[in-house]
Amino acid sequence: MATQVIVLNGGSSSGKSGIVRCLQAVLPDPWLAAAIDSLVEAMPASLRSSSAGIDFAADGGVQVGSQFRELEAAWMEGVAAMARAGARVIVDDVFLGGAASQQRWQKALGGLEVLWVGVRCEASVAAGREVARGDRGRGMAASQAEMVHRGVVYDLEVDTTHTESLECARAVAARVG
Amino acid sequence: MATQVIVLNGGSSSGKSGIVRCLQAVLPDPWLAAAIDSLVEAMPASLRSSSAGIDFAADGGVQVGSQFRELEAAWMEGVAAMARAGARVIVDDVFLGGAASQQRWQKALGGLEVLWVGVRCEASVAAGREVARGDRGRGMAASQAEMVHRGVVYDLEVDTTHTESLECARAVAARVG
Amino acid sequence: MATQVIVLNGGSSSGKSGIVRCLQAVLPDPWLAAAIDSLVEAMPASLRSSSAGIDFAADGGVQVGSQFRELEAAWMEGVAAMARAGARVIVDDVFLGGAASQQRWQKALGGLEVLWVGVRCEASVAAGREVARGDRGRGMAASQAEMVHRGVVYDLEVDTTHTESLECARAVAARVG
Amino acid sequence: MATQVIVLNGGSSSGKSGIVRCLQAVLPDPWLAAAIDSLVEAMPASLRSSSAGIDFAADGGVQVGSQFRELEAAWMEGVAAMARAGARVIVDDVFLGGAASQQRWQKALGGLEVLWVGVRCEASVAAGREVARGDRGRGMAASQAEMVHRGVVYDLEVDTTHTESLECARAVAARVG
Repeated sequence: MATQVIVLNGGSSSGKSGIVRCLQAVLPDPWLAAAIDSLVEAMPASLRSSSAGIDFAADGGVQVGSQFRELEAAWMEGVAAMARAGARVIVDDVFLGGAASQQRWQKALGGLEVLWVGVRCEASVAAGREVARGDRGRGMAASQAEMVHRGVVYDLEVDTTHTESLECARAVAARVG
Repeated sequence: MATQVIVLNGGSSSGKSGIVRCLQAVLPDPWLAAAIDSLVEAMPASLRSSSAGIDFAADGGVQVGSQFRELEAAWMEGVAAMARAGARVIVDDVFLGGAASQQRWQKALGGLEVLWVGVRCEASVAAGREVARGDRGRGMAASQAEMVHRGVVYDLEVDTTHTESLECARAVAARVG
Repeated sequence: MATQVIVLNGGSSSGKSGIVRCLQAVLPDPWLAAAIDSLVEAMPASLRSSSAGIDFAADGGVQVGSQFRELEAAWMEGVAAMARAGARVIVDDVFLGGAASQQRWQKALGGLEVLWVGVRCEASVAAGREVARGDRGRGMAASQAEMVHRGVVYDLEVDTTHTESLECARAVAARVG
Repeated sequence: MATQVIVLNGGSSSGKSGIVRCLQAVLPDPWLAAAIDSLVEAMPASLRSSSAGIDFAADGGVQVGSQFRELEAAWMEGVAAMARAGARVIVDDVFLGGAASQQRWQKALGGLEVLWVGVRCEASVAAGREVARGDRGRGMAASQAEMVHRGVVYDLEVDTTHTESLECARAVAARVG
């Protein structure tokens, strides 16, 4: 059956969004990107630094509150509805809750053909790329590198530590039905 | 009944996104922004300059093709699903098709409580703001200023020609149930 | 004598950068923009939140330290050198020190033909535009609106409270020799 | 003698700006970034798509005209003046003219202690990173990969093909006097 949703999960600075853009370039059909970063951008500015919303600590820790969770749950339903309406969607997320995050997506995406992809990157390399980007708080990459994969089950894993985004995207594309 | 979706329609550089941010700041509950510009960003780069996708002409004209229409239709379903799942959503769109665009939204948002808002700005003023932004092709503001409102029915209209975004947002917020 | 440098001074969200882009569009010769915001972007990330660099307080207050001052002084010399080498330059600055800031520029720009322009905006309106932008800390617009003009002498003042950027730019352009 | 200017030269998508941010993070003193991309941003919008300014062809070719050259020459003088005034500066440039571009910088930076760094990246890898970025015209990376290094003499070369930005930055930092 044809893949309807590709879910990429990985820590901050693991290279997910680069893989998304390469997937959009190499897949023959048009795929829509749905990134958790875009959801955060779509929230009121006040939620981007609040305990009810999402809070980025100085050490790289990220805490989300009840209002964030409610909007995120509705967003997941929206992404599922886009796919059911015929759009091919690539989700770019950070499973802060590991297996529990995957279960939330599995519930929202029920009945859809999903390809689950883990995007790994060695913590020290991701931390270096965080410095090179310059637009992220220091510490997120290292603190999330292992945590987001705990208990998560994938169809495929790619590792950007020594592999370019485009090559990772080609490996994912080869698994798209 | 409580408003679930606010739809802002207006031409390029009419000031919609500023009103969205002000609405997010003045409304007591958290509202999510769903902007047509973000949809365009979420599409493959190849669709952003193609006849099947969206094409920006040198004179400010905008043409959309079949692949754009398909992704847009699925996005509308997704926005509706987010609202049905409990998120309050502010749509920020440019009705290139006027009344026909509104009908597509009406169909997608069926059963939801929607506040329709027209965002007007005199063509010459919008054209000047287009120059001041510097990130948009010249001519879009003027060509869209009247066109996008043709045949569209609103609950409320605001005009940014002589009224600040925050004041417009307060007028809209006063009508939110 | 031909104007070599235009210095725009105004508080945060007073509309300076929009006027710069309009000036670049309406002036017949090519003019280069030199913005204090770009200087801050060019500094190491660590200086953008440090007492030795530049520190943005939660109430909108801005403090700059010794390392910021040193880089800023060198930048002023660089801007002057660009103008002496034949580039026409539009400076977009926030005179946190009022008259003292102007004196630093006067010293750096010695021998050049400078047009000094004050960009004013009523504090309440600038504060509303700060909300509409959504990318600046709240409070900067209001706290800087009057402060940056204290003791500063201008060739020309424009006020964006009720006048569009393009119209302000035309008023400035009419004074460029 | 202490290094006053670091000049990084490399093709589009070779990884220069990531190395700049890492250098700013690892060097003990504050260094200012001066990027050719920022110069292009500082020019009038009309020059960014004109034969007198800078023109990006569909095949990745870049042509610059007389007005661009004049502003660029003045910018080089400005960068040199910043360094002479005491700022440590990292230049991030693309030597479209190879050795001739280096000679222009050598003339502007006369008397200053300069560290010349070549940033290499295999054309095929740079082309893949161009796709992953998604914000650059396709073809620039491949067409510039070799061309920009022709006849240029370096104190040090780094290659981002298999080496992370942070590691490259550490190699450069070790040579800073």
